[in-house]
Amino acid sequence: MSGQFIVIEGLEGAGKSTAVACLEEVLNQAGIRHVHVREPGGTPMAEALRELVKGDWEETVSADAELLIMYAARLQLVENVIKPNLAADTWVVGDRHDLSSQAYQGGGRQLGRAKLQALRDITLGDFKPSLTLYLDIQPEVGLQRALGRGQLDRIEQEDISFFQRTRNRYLELASEDPTIKVIDAGQPLHEVSASIRQQVEQFLQGLSSA
Amino acid sequence: MSGQFIVIEGLEGAGKSTAVACLEEVLNQAGIRHVHVREPGGTPMAEALRELVKGDWEETVSADAELLIMYAARLQLVENVIKPNLAADTWVVGDRHDLSSQAYQGGGRQLGRAKLQALRDITLGDFKPSLTLYLDIQPEVGLQRALGRGQLDRIEQEDISFFQRTRNRYLELASEDPTIKVIDAGQPLHEVSASIRQQVEQFLQGLSSA
Repeated sequence: MSGQFIVIEGLEGAGKSTAVACLEEVLNQAGIRHVHVREPGGTPMAEALRELVKGDWEETVSADAELLIMYAARLQLVENVIKPNLAADTWVVGDRHDLSSQAYQGGGRQLGRAKLQALRDITLGDFKPSLTLYLDIQPEVGLQRALGRGQLDRIEQEDISFFQRTRNRYLELASEDPTIKVIDAGQPLHEVSASIRQQVEQFLQGLSSA
Repeated sequence: MSGQFIVIEGLEGAGKSTAVACLEEVLNQAGIRHVHVREPGGTPMAEALRELVKGDWEETVSADAELLIMYAARLQLVENVIKPNLAADTWVVGDRHDLSSQAYQGGGRQLGRAKLQALRDITLGDFKPSLTLYLDIQPEVGLQRALGRGQLDRIEQEDISFFQRTRNRYLELASEDPTIKVIDAGQPLHEVSASIRQQVEQFLQGLSSA
């Protein structure tokens, strides 16, 4: 079975870390070798870009500049980590990927879909995850959880309407793409884990019967 | 007279700093208020991006990622420094601008013109300098001068053919755009300065007669 790229997506506090752990457990049980990456970041340069874009600056950060930096970090990760692993038949579990830019910058910051599409095409071409699990949660609930973890970064400090627009775009994109599965992250934790397990097992069955 | 954006371009060692000083002297003599910016850089975030892109990394830096970072830095400078100054009738003297990306990434790194054009449109729209002075020099001569200044950075360490392709693209783009003037930077220094002075004075005359 060749390497597959599976991504966990969702708003702050949706439970992405728990979902990644759950996904990795399913892969371990199936004896599938895998690595875990987090966006933005995952290579030395991409981590430096992550620090930069999440930092507080004494200047307005242009929404387009933020977007370009996210894509630069993504490219470094895709070219230097994700693709080489997949080529070596190692699966890659991603904590966020391109869908985050589509949802946060497209929905939250209201950048045009044409602009985002153009940037995506320029940088990633037709590279995309085989499966994306989107953890859907109400922004109020997610941010309350994220706040419980401590300081909010520059992006996490956005107005609640920003996250509502982001969530709406996530749901809209999921409805258009059969490789994006929506998980109700408002359920009790063990039910969220069960949903993740079910989706991943279904994906594995699909692969082995293909 | 409303604010104008004048840019000095050229390969490493072409004499851009001297040219900037000469240009500023002409503007001073004409009583024109101006500021000086350098790309990549010129805002705190853009300077951080400059450090990042010029650094040595224990990973391959994708040509597209480099390009995106250059544009992110440029956007911060354009939005936070260049446009506000021009709007306040202060002229801006630029040490490099978009033409550098077109020449270095397009010519040197051989990225497609369509890709560069798309990125330019996405980020800058129709914003461009009123006048660009391109200091043309043979790469061997320029690099020899740059070497005399000390360590070469990641980009300056490229093969000589990289700089030949970059120079060719500069010349090609200059031939297509009447706002780009080619200055022979291989001349003795006082003649280079005279050429710069002449071009700027011609530009000022054009403005006042318009």
